[in-house]
Amino acid sequence: MPEFLRLQTPSEALARLLEALPHDASPGGEDMPTQDALGRVLANDVRAPHALPPFPRSSVDGYAVRAADTFGASASLPAYVSLAGEVLMGTRTTLNVQRGQAALVHTGGMIPSGADAVVMVEDTQVARPGEIEILKPAAPGQNVLLLGEDVQPGETVLQRGVRLRAQEIGGLMALGLTRVGVIRRPRVAILSTGDEVVAPDADPLPGQVRDVNTYTLSALVTQAGGEPVLYGILPDQRDALETAARDAYASCDVVLITAGSSVSTRDITSEIIATLGSPGVLAHGVALKPGKPTILAVCGGKPVIGLPGNPVSALVVAGLFVTPLLHRLLGVQAPRLTPRVAARLTTNIPSEAGREDYVPVRVSGEEGAFVAEPVFGKSNLIFTLVRADGLVRVPPEANGLPAGAQVEVLLF
Amino acid sequence: MPEFLRLQTPSEALARLLEALPHDASPGGEDMPTQDALGRVLANDVRAPHALPPFPRSSVDGYAVRAADTFGASASLPAYVSLAGEVLMGTRTTLNVQRGQAALVHTGGMIPSGADAVVMVEDTQVARPGEIEILKPAAPGQNVLLLGEDVQPGETVLQRGVRLRAQEIGGLMALGLTRVGVIRRPRVAILSTGDEVVAPDADPLPGQVRDVNTYTLSALVTQAGGEPVLYGILPDQRDALETAARDAYASCDVVLITAGSSVSTRDITSEIIATLGSPGVLAHGVALKPGKPTILAVCGGKPVIGLPGNPVSALVVAGLFVTPLLHRLLGVQAPRLTPRVAARLTTNIPSEAGREDYVPVRVSGEEGAFVAEPVFGKSNLIFTLVRADGLVRVPPEANGLPAGAQVEVLLF
Repeated sequence: MPEFLRLQTPSEALARLLEALPHDASPGGEDMPTQDALGRVLANDVRAPHALPPFPRSSVDGYAVRAADTFGASASLPAYVSLAGEVLMGTRTTLNVQRGQAALVHTGGMIPSGADAVVMVEDTQVARPGEIEILKPAAPGQNVLLLGEDVQPGETVLQRGVRLRAQEIGGLMALGLTRVGVIRRPRVAILSTGDEVVAPDADPLPGQVRDVNTYTLSALVTQAGGEPVLYGILPDQRDALETAARDAYASCDVVLITAGSSVSTRDITSEIIATLGSPGVLAHGVALKPGKPTILAVCGGKPVIGLPGNPVSALVVAGLFVTPLLHRLLGVQAPRLTPRVAARLTTNIPSEAGREDYVPVRVSGEEGAFVAEPVFGKSNLIFTLVRADGLVRVPPEANGLPAGAQVEVLLF
Repeated sequence: MPEFLRLQTPSEALARLLEALPHDASPGGEDMPTQDALGRVLANDVRAPHALPPFPRSSVDGYAVRAADTFGASASLPAYVSLAGEVLMGTRTTLNVQRGQAALVHTGGMIPSGADAVVMVEDTQVARPGEIEILKPAAPGQNVLLLGEDVQPGETVLQRGVRLRAQEIGGLMALGLTRVGVIRRPRVAILSTGDEVVAPDADPLPGQVRDVNTYTLSALVTQAGGEPVLYGILPDQRDALETAARDAYASCDVVLITAGSSVSTRDITSEIIATLGSPGVLAHGVALKPGKPTILAVCGGKPVIGLPGNPVSALVVAGLFVTPLLHRLLGVQAPRLTPRVAARLTTNIPSEAGREDYVPVRVSGEEGAFVAEPVFGKSNLIFTLVRADGLVRVPPEANGLPAGAQVEVLLF
């Protein structure tokens, strides 16, 4: 087992983990209906099979005209045009707008040939049946969407690695792309160890506690775009743990092991990880609180992570390492814009220099004047995080943060 | 059909919509496995059936001692204690720590009777087998989690209206609550109208466009916690639309109708809504761009919303009205903390006073120095939003925003 005298910072350790992955660590693509692909990640660039709009359209309700016919028109001196007809929605219009003519057109309707502008209906009035007064001049092209103005045929409209939001789904549908290639969700094995851990539906005996990590990690993996594969609770025995870890390693893309509580079990975990493949353990311990006993490894191209057994530590560490890891495997474009709010600290946060601290805080107060109150609690049980809205990071160079400091709360 | 001379602002219109809902507009509760409940909303307060931790536990690896035995201990003058045994994980320990004794205990292990503190293993050394040197004094209670320190029996640990995150799922599991009561997802009917609209898998003829709104709205409804029910594309005919609207109204909790493009269809939509029940249409037109032709109604206790047919308008308006409406129906605690980033505008945004504008922007640049570039484009097709990361709000009292202004980007 490698020893690290100086613990790596979280960002050093993460960089080392990601660098040790194979160049193409993607789990590959799969094809699915576009309408079910919300949140999935595009496997390939998408090119437009045709132009959008696919025909010249009006962007308003009004009259399609030859702009030249309207020059100089005003409310006191309208231009008069005769009504050539109405453009029906959803049909190719056969109207041809001649000099001195206009065609009634609705928003989104096709611009008839001959016309080069649309006068908004508010800027017109019907002089008598079949004759329209134009009260304002229109410039050529006004209120007209040209063919291909939004998207040109063959244009790359979406790039590989985009995580699909509502609007991307809509854009694909607009182009008739009702199926889409997405990256397969990485299968993430979750192994929970500890002789004291029992299933949530069990009645714990004195000395036992229910498994929390399997379910919090499962939720986090799902949110990050992975597919959790639950291996359940394993006893703190080398043989059982090794068998399960090898099975998980063989059939999943990522292996997470929440370490048992005893020192010897944590050692067993890192020893087993070391046997799965090279380069093996990259960080055993990180300059991080909570989460110091974190193990980061890449074995034969697959990431294997040992998480602390404490539920708060496990979830914080997973947010720092597992989420970016899954984004890397998915090839997702970096979510540069981590949701956060600015707030003022209510009390001092003590911390040791040289270690990065993540402190759960509860945010309250008014928009623009939020305050962040640390949720301390030595118990460090899961309800510490239930009571929190996000985390405040204390950088390694700081000796804590003073009350009144302006901080950014990283929202869960 | 009521007429509104002064258009309501978006916040006025939303308040009017929410006030017109029945006091209890909840779609009711349902029971489900906790492990599948990520993102669902609690239907009832949750009380702890027992204390957490359920027994006194050590928060570190170390030796359980009587604190008094360690007073005055130092590296140069250690206190000597004899080893009474080891607390095995997952069992009720029968050890009893007497004066001058210590018991080896692991993180999370039970504190044996007699002991009132735990000395961290780093602050000890083994003098000889069975004898331990304590190098630092421990205060009573140090590194000990008392029974019920995190949660007391009967304590309300989660409140009705909480949207379940990873940590709430974990908290429920810690208490053995493997099933949970959540609010049923409101069924949201989505009706798309327009003679020019065809299904995404169709080859549009000239003059036709593919349906986008059904799918963008469906995604937004899903994200907001609702269950989309797709009614497909309806022609701009009063009878067909009325039949579908009545059907949707009878079987869903919310009805969304994206209006057809022609003026007459928009009128038909509001007339049909008015027949569904009282009080009927509350806002027909909102001082908002995009989204002026929005219709907000409550009919016989059910919200019915007419959205603009333009895909950008429909999605922006749905974000402003449908998302808060669904949160209200779900009884979700207000998501006070809208994710946003601060950025500097690259160019002027023009706007008319008296109207609230939402302008799609693309965010780029470095953390702490983000810039927001408006994604203009008169076409207002869906790819405008594909190119954007969020929206900048121009308040109704402003005549636009100048280049260089510091703005908050509301992230999608």
